[in-house]
Amino acid sequence: MKNVKFNSVKLKNGFWHDRCELNRTSSIYNVYKRFDDTGRIRAFNFDWKEGMPDKPHFFWDSDVAKWIESVAYIVSDKRDEALEALADALIDKIEKHQDECGYFNIFHTVIEPQNRFSNRDHHELYCAGHLMEAAVAYYEATGKRKLLDCMEKYGDYIKKVFVDEDSAGFVTPGHEEIELALVKMYECTGDKKWLELSKFFLDKRGENLKNESANPWKPDYSQSHIPVREQRTAEGHAVRACYLYTAMADIARLTGDEGMIEACDAIFDNIVNKRMYITGGIGSAAAGEAFTQDYDLPNITAYTESCAAIALAFFARRLQEVHVNSVYADVVERVMYNGFLSSVSLDGKAFFYENPLEIPPRASKLKDARYPITERLEVFGCSCCPPNVTRFTASIAEAMYTVDDKTNTVYVQQYIASDSRFDTENGPCRIVQDTEYPNNGSVKITYYGEKRTLAVRIPAWCDSYRGEKKNGYAYFEVESGDILEFCFAMRPVFVEANMNVNDDLGRCALTYGPIVMCLEAVDNGSYLRDIRIKADSQYSFGKNERLGLPTVRFAATRRNIRPSLYMPRTAEREEFTAEFIPYFAFANRGESEMLVFVNVD
Amino acid sequence: MKNVKFNSVKLKNGFWHDRCELNRTSSIYNVYKRFDDTGRIRAFNFDWKEGMPDKPHFFWDSDVAKWIESVAYIVSDKRDEALEALADALIDKIEKHQDECGYFNIFHTVIEPQNRFSNRDHHELYCAGHLMEAAVAYYEATGKRKLLDCMEKYGDYIKKVFVDEDSAGFVTPGHEEIELALVKMYECTGDKKWLELSKFFLDKRGENLKNESANPWKPDYSQSHIPVREQRTAEGHAVRACYLYTAMADIARLTGDEGMIEACDAIFDNIVNKRMYITGGIGSAAAGEAFTQDYDLPNITAYTESCAAIALAFFARRLQEVHVNSVYADVVERVMYNGFLSSVSLDGKAFFYENPLEIPPRASKLKDARYPITERLEVFGCSCCPPNVTRFTASIAEAMYTVDDKTNTVYVQQYIASDSRFDTENGPCRIVQDTEYPNNGSVKITYYGEKRTLAVRIPAWCDSYRGEKKNGYAYFEVESGDILEFCFAMRPVFVEANMNVNDDLGRCALTYGPIVMCLEAVDNGSYLRDIRIKADSQYSFGKNERLGLPTVRFAATRRNIRPSLYMPRTAEREEFTAEFIPYFAFANRGESEMLVFVNVD
Repeated sequence: MKNVKFNSVKLKNGFWHDRCELNRTSSIYNVYKRFDDTGRIRAFNFDWKEGMPDKPHFFWDSDVAKWIESVAYIVSDKRDEALEALADALIDKIEKHQDECGYFNIFHTVIEPQNRFSNRDHHELYCAGHLMEAAVAYYEATGKRKLLDCMEKYGDYIKKVFVDEDSAGFVTPGHEEIELALVKMYECTGDKKWLELSKFFLDKRGENLKNESANPWKPDYSQSHIPVREQRTAEGHAVRACYLYTAMADIARLTGDEGMIEACDAIFDNIVNKRMYITGGIGSAAAGEAFTQDYDLPNITAYTESCAAIALAFFARRLQEVHVNSVYADVVERVMYNGFLSSVSLDGKAFFYENPLEIPPRASKLKDARYPITERLEVFGCSCCPPNVTRFTASIAEAMYTVDDKTNTVYVQQYIASDSRFDTENGPCRIVQDTEYPNNGSVKITYYGEKRTLAVRIPAWCDSYRGEKKNGYAYFEVESGDILEFCFAMRPVFVEANMNVNDDLGRCALTYGPIVMCLEAVDNGSYLRDIRIKADSQYSFGKNERLGLPTVRFAATRRNIRPSLYMPRTAEREEFTAEFIPYFAFANRGESEMLVFVNVD
Repeated sequence: MKNVKFNSVKLKNGFWHDRCELNRTSSIYNVYKRFDDTGRIRAFNFDWKEGMPDKPHFFWDSDVAKWIESVAYIVSDKRDEALEALADALIDKIEKHQDECGYFNIFHTVIEPQNRFSNRDHHELYCAGHLMEAAVAYYEATGKRKLLDCMEKYGDYIKKVFVDEDSAGFVTPGHEEIELALVKMYECTGDKKWLELSKFFLDKRGENLKNESANPWKPDYSQSHIPVREQRTAEGHAVRACYLYTAMADIARLTGDEGMIEACDAIFDNIVNKRMYITGGIGSAAAGEAFTQDYDLPNITAYTESCAAIALAFFARRLQEVHVNSVYADVVERVMYNGFLSSVSLDGKAFFYENPLEIPPRASKLKDARYPITERLEVFGCSCCPPNVTRFTASIAEAMYTVDDKTNTVYVQQYIASDSRFDTENGPCRIVQDTEYPNNGSVKITYYGEKRTLAVRIPAWCDSYRGEKKNGYAYFEVESGDILEFCFAMRPVFVEANMNVNDDLGRCALTYGPIVMCLEAVDNGSYLRDIRIKADSQYSFGKNERLGLPTVRFAATRRNIRPSLYMPRTAEREEFTAEFIPYFAFANRGESEMLVFVNVD
């Protein structure tokens, strides 16, 4: 099976179209400006000298690479000469400063040329991977192959150093990324050597090779504790982990490698059934930006890096090409509308690196504890997230459909107002979606093309669908002009977490369709944990004017404030109407307490 | 006003008599054995050499000093030649190895004699203070003044170095203790120079003197950020802080120093109204073993060092000599039955250094987080708590009564079955208490002596007392043979914390009289936070056979276990009877989840 690529989908007016427009007109420029301010753009001049400000960091190449990749997706949807010019200028510099041998890395050319490929955690292969992803996307979006040529040249050099000569100071990179990028380069160019090189890095990982534990972390920090095919749980740095698992799923699909499939299945099951927040966020610990252990999902200190949520969506999108099961698209949806979308402000300019599920009172003033920041920033010292957000937004339609030529089936994975045209072995296919999803669950799907099967995902949260389904999909034989109409009825549903999630015990999260809701103090007053929602009472919908978003209102009670530190409980509680907003919109009106898992009567 | 000393009170059969017996027959020997095993006793031979095991630590003198002080209180109550012989042997060694000049410290004689009084955080004055406290107690208990002579000699040397010559490497000690000990030495010997020396150390603190910030902590870690009379909030290391405040309250009482009184009052108010756990535990952060900020009272990570709870009781006991207000004795009571008593196992052999208010599931297996240990240990590397527990237990009757000669009033502060005889300016006084407190609230007080006023504390938790009271006391004119009978009716009361205590929001603690109760998984199954107590239902009393303690039972509900990570809430809940045990008895039946603040319907 194969996912339909981003460039086959044209968004129509609606939820994601609006967000992509904001991304195109605001976020992409804002990220560029911040990268310019911080020296990341200037670094591509390769003229930094000791004593100058903004010393290039060894991961800066990747930040800008993701920005170029974002531009590719944006201009693919809608030509934008100004943006393309900015990207072209960067690409020209990459070509100009690439070493004769093919090597490219700003830090290890301008600052430490003597230490190339000597430190596993200097992110050279990680940066290479992001440049390769950018190269493939830019070529596919614009037809320009300058960057792709550079990166194929770099790929050849990497193969020479790591495979042919085995002359690097390590064997597998500390931060995975190149593995999935090489698969993209293989699928773009058709050159099998890139697939082989990706497989090489995967096969070697965890074999206790030279310098494999050179960093201060334990080997599982970079998933190097055991060979990848033996891994069964998600361990270590969550972004590294899911970039690795994404490549593993790619290899599983392309080679049918049973060991790889088994590992991917076990790890995915471990993540989504034991180590994932209700928002789709993953990696609960700041220490190591890492997975910790089953059911360890604290809300206040949730690390849940934006990049990790995105990486989980990548992994899930790849697995939907391996197995027919709606669980993968359900996870992508969970990430899209929650743990990913929370990472960008409603004006598109500022970002969260971490996405906590609770902001306690006075969070920014608490001493002696490490809490996530409570308001979004425009750039970070380690600014991997903002350009990851821009590229994920611009390619939101990626993997919306999956084609299975053998059974002549197209799987409809996501609901986005759009018009898509793509080829299959059984002829061209056009699918038009008209929907206001996720504001409501009505979806109209119009099909054009040869007779085939459409398999439509019934969202996991939807309990009202009465038709037949298999592996989470409803199957329909369609011919050109056929229209399928669905109403995935949305209503507020209180959700509880597994008993082993101690931090959620005794409380529930409100969901509305795919959207996780939250309380903010700006709407409900302070002391959110004190509020008790009358879950079985009549609810109503509101609209938050400042956010421009729909809200859900429930009757609730709260205590009156009394001054003592400890006092006998009083049954008297004030009645009021609690207002829930979508979680993704939290922290858009200044610092405010926030709570996802609330007390429910 | 003046508290009546421990040696005027004879315990009768009852709650504290049992605990003191356990202390005398088990704890005191067990602590000695562990101190012997770990080299702490042998260190008093002053023969440790490089390469030998058990290198003396610079705070070891204080551990053994507190052990000697414990012996003093124990033998004062009941002569015990074997114990006294162990203490005498140690005291002989102290005399033998004390320097000609008066100096005494094992570490700075055996290991670093060249660095005496050069490092503010090497605890020399802290150790000196504990030896002085032991000397006073041992003299008062046994009439033997060898140790007191040694310590007066040491005191003279300290005065010479710190005051007369000002030749030490610092001015005030990093760990307070000597200040309160010098007051004890003054009150025992009547020699004013000890009062002056105490005042000297208090007056200089916070004046930004030499090496005052030599440790890696900020100055408030050791209460050196501002002069003591300007301090208004409890800051830094909680044990250091409360030892300091205790001395400040002593000086306030003895000199009428208004600035000192004002500071003590503000700090006490800050602690008990904003920074104290419901158990009387203080110092919520492991980092710095410290106070953090108002209302920051997390349950799972509560540090609440046993020594800190004890130190708070010391501070409160001193303030009840300054002001007529039952709030001080209420705090002592809160500590006695909860945050202090939890620190020792029911068999008297093992101790908690930290006393958390919640043990989550699988606490001992959680990675990447710092949790208190879940079972008591017999000795610690830093083993200040065990001998502090033995001395506090053996002197539990200290400050049970306070005499105000001016108004010819005796304040009854604590309820302990006992027979006390002490002198006042208005003649001798004998008070007999017959009570099963805290198992029930009936107290019979029989008075013998001249006509005077008895002021009886009405416990803060008691809401059934209908008589007149003033500052928390009921006043009675009594003559010899008069009997006062009270029934402070105890019933289960659910208590809520101030809204600003985020970790307790939406939950309540069950109290029974002065005792805080808790749930343990061993009685109630796992997932304690999921349990909802029907607070308004009929309750019953039980007895836990394994603990030999009364319990309180409430109707409750809990969820059935379902495997998903997230699932729609179900209203179906299993009915069962929840069993609360006293908090102080938690963790006496192996590792178990534990919860104080529970969900209440």
